[in-house]
Amino acid sequence: MTETRPTSLVVDIHTHVYPPSYIALLKSRSSIPYIRSFPPSSSLRLVILPAEDTESTSRGRPVGPEYYDITRKIAFMDTHSIDISVISLANPWLDWVPAGEAAKVAENINNEINEECGKFPGRLFAFATLPLSGGKNVILKEIERLKGLIYIRGIILGTTGLGKGLDDPELLPIFQALQDEKLPVFLHPHYGLPSSVWGERANDYGHVLPLALGFPLETTIAVTRMILSGVFEKVSGLQMILAHSGGTLPFLAGRIESCIVHDAHLMTEGKLTKDRKTIWEILKNNIYLDAVVYSEIGLKAAIQASGEDRIMFGTDHPFFPPLEGETEKWASVETNYEAIQGALGSHNDKASGALGENAVRVLHLTI
Amino acid sequence: MTETRPTSLVVDIHTHVYPPSYIALLKSRSSIPYIRSFPPSSSLRLVILPAEDTESTSRGRPVGPEYYDITRKIAFMDTHSIDISVISLANPWLDWVPAGEAAKVAENINNEINEECGKFPGRLFAFATLPLSGGKNVILKEIERLKGLIYIRGIILGTTGLGKGLDDPELLPIFQALQDEKLPVFLHPHYGLPSSVWGERANDYGHVLPLALGFPLETTIAVTRMILSGVFEKVSGLQMILAHSGGTLPFLAGRIESCIVHDAHLMTEGKLTKDRKTIWEILKNNIYLDAVVYSEIGLKAAIQASGEDRIMFGTDHPFFPPLEGETEKWASVETNYEAIQGALGSHNDKASGALGENAVRVLHLTI
Repeated sequence: MTETRPTSLVVDIHTHVYPPSYIALLKSRSSIPYIRSFPPSSSLRLVILPAEDTESTSRGRPVGPEYYDITRKIAFMDTHSIDISVISLANPWLDWVPAGEAAKVAENINNEINEECGKFPGRLFAFATLPLSGGKNVILKEIERLKGLIYIRGIILGTTGLGKGLDDPELLPIFQALQDEKLPVFLHPHYGLPSSVWGERANDYGHVLPLALGFPLETTIAVTRMILSGVFEKVSGLQMILAHSGGTLPFLAGRIESCIVHDAHLMTEGKLTKDRKTIWEILKNNIYLDAVVYSEIGLKAAIQASGEDRIMFGTDHPFFPPLEGETEKWASVETNYEAIQGALGSHNDKASGALGENAVRVLHLTI
Repeated sequence: MTETRPTSLVVDIHTHVYPPSYIALLKSRSSIPYIRSFPPSSSLRLVILPAEDTESTSRGRPVGPEYYDITRKIAFMDTHSIDISVISLANPWLDWVPAGEAAKVAENINNEINEECGKFPGRLFAFATLPLSGGKNVILKEIERLKGLIYIRGIILGTTGLGKGLDDPELLPIFQALQDEKLPVFLHPHYGLPSSVWGERANDYGHVLPLALGFPLETTIAVTRMILSGVFEKVSGLQMILAHSGGTLPFLAGRIESCIVHDAHLMTEGKLTKDRKTIWEILKNNIYLDAVVYSEIGLKAAIQASGEDRIMFGTDHPFFPPLEGETEKWASVETNYEAIQGALGSHNDKASGALGENAVRVLHLTI
C-alpha cells in the first residue's frame, strides 16, 4: 500500500491517550469504566462499554503502553507518516466522576496532556477535557484556566453534557464560553445505544454492533438534538468537529431536513426559532467532520455534506490495532488514507486539505 | 420544478396502503396500533408509534381516503408522473396480531391488495404481508398460497421476524422459501429505537427524531444482524430491498466491515462462516436500495454502495404530505426526483434505471 503514503503534511485529529492519572483512576475502580486483570491471565484489560463487560476471553481490551506512553504515540505517527497529532483523552470522559472530584481530575488530566505535548513541540497539540460532573461553574472555570495551557486547541466532549444531553439549555453558557474562547468541540460517542436493540444473539457478534452502529448513532442523535433545540442559532459561532465523519449525519441530513419541514407540530406551533438554519447551513458553517469512516463512499458523502475544506484526517489510535500482532502499518489507518485518495485524489490541494492543512488552519497548529 | 419531470418509465416501489379489512381491524382497537377520533375533533387519526401516542394536537396523524381508497393512489401517481406502483401494506405489519387470527388476517389483506391491483391492470403490483405471529408453518403456507395471487411480486417485512429479530435461525426456512419462490423481501422499519435515546425534550421536536433517525437505524441494525449471523451465506440467493436507501447502511458499511475484521472475538473464534461474504459483496449481490433518502448526497452513497442497477425510486406515499393543504406536487416526492437527477442526470440509461427500469427488471412488472 505504499502508494497511499502522502507527500503533504498529515495531521491526525482523532487520536486518544490515557494519561497516567487517568490510568491510576481507572485501576482504582471495579465497575465500568475500569482497568484490571482477569485471572488466570495477569495482563491488564480496560473495560469501558457494558457490551464488553461480560465473561469472555475478549472481555474489554488489552491495555498496553500504546494507551499511556506518549513515545508510543510518536512511534505510531512516524510509522504512518503523521506529522502532527491533536491528542484527546480516550472515552469515557468525566461525566462519571464524583462531583467533588471533577475539578481536580480534569485539571490533572489537562495539565498532563499539555505537558506531554510540550515534550514534542510542534508535533503534538491537544483537546482538553471538561469536568462535566462538577457543574456549570466548575466547567466555566476550567475553560478559563485552559488559556494557560499552550497546546490546547479545543475540547473533547461526550454526548451526556450535564446529564441531560447536549440539547440541555443549561449548557448554553458553556457553549457560549467555548465559542468566545475559540475552542472547537470534538464530539465523540461513548454510550452507544441501549443493549436491547442488538437482540439476544449480540454476544455472538463480538463488539461489532455497539462499535459499528451504536457509536455513530449516538453522535448523530446528539447533534440532531442540538440542531432541533436551536443551539446553532443561539450560539451561532459554535464550532463542532464530529467523530466518525458525523456518525451518520451526512447520509441522513436530507431525511432529517425533510422530516422537519413536514412536521406539523414543529412547523405550525412555533417550536423552531424563526431564524432557523437548515441542516445544510449548519453542516457548512458550524460542523467539521473527521475522515474516520473507513470507506470512500462514506467519505465522499462527508465531503459533499460539509465541504472539502472542513474534513480532517484521523486514525482513532490506539484503537483498532491489527489482530495479527506486529504488522507495521495498521489496516484501519491505511483504509482511511485510501478513502481520502479515492475521494479526493492525491498530490493536490483538496487531498492536502483533508490530510492536514484544514486542521492546521482551523485549529491553529503552530507554536 | 417542471424540469424534474422524467420522460422515462417511473415505478414507485415504496408506497403504502391500508386495505379496508386492516382499517376495520385498527378501528376495533384502543392501543397502538389503532384508529380513533380524539374529541373535540371528530376526524379519525391513526396512531402507530409510541412517540405519537401522547396528549397533543398532533397525536397520530389524520386518516384520509388517501390511506385506503385505491383511486387516490392512482390520482397521486398521475399527478407525479408515476406509471407503476408496487403497493405494500403500511406499518405496522402482522407481528402484533393474535396468533390464531394471523393466517386469516394476512389472507384477507393479501387478497384485497391483489384485487385492488386488478382494478388497474399494469399500473399496480404489490408486496404481500406475512402472518408473522402465526408461526413458521402458517407463514410457509401463506408463501405457497401467494402463487395464486397474480400481482404479488415480493413481500414486505418488518424487523421483528418471529419475535427475536431477523438473525433468528428459525427464520432460515422462511428466507429459503422466499428465495425459492423468487420473492424479494422489502425490509421496512416500524419500531425505531427505545424512546430513552431521544432525551427528555423529545416531545418538543415533533416526530422528527423517531422518524428521521429511529427508522433508518432500525433498518440498519436489522440487516447488520442478518449479515453477522450469516443469513446471506446460508440463503445465498435471498434478495432484500431496503427501505430509505438502506437506513444508513451505505454510509456505515466501511465501519461495519472494519469493525468485523478488527474484532478478535469474531475473527479468532470461528464465529463467522468460513465462506463469509464481505458487506460489499452482500450489497452488490443480495441488496437493492430504494431512493427514498431526500438528498443527492445520500443517494450517491447508495448508488456507489449497491450499484446504479440496484436503485429503485419510491415516494413513501401517503406519508409526508405537504403541510399546506392542496399543493399539487408533494415536496417529499420532488426532493427524491431531484436527488436522482442530481446523482445520475436525466434522460439517460442510469437515471431511467433508478426511475423505473431496475424495478421492472427485478420485480418482473409485466402482466
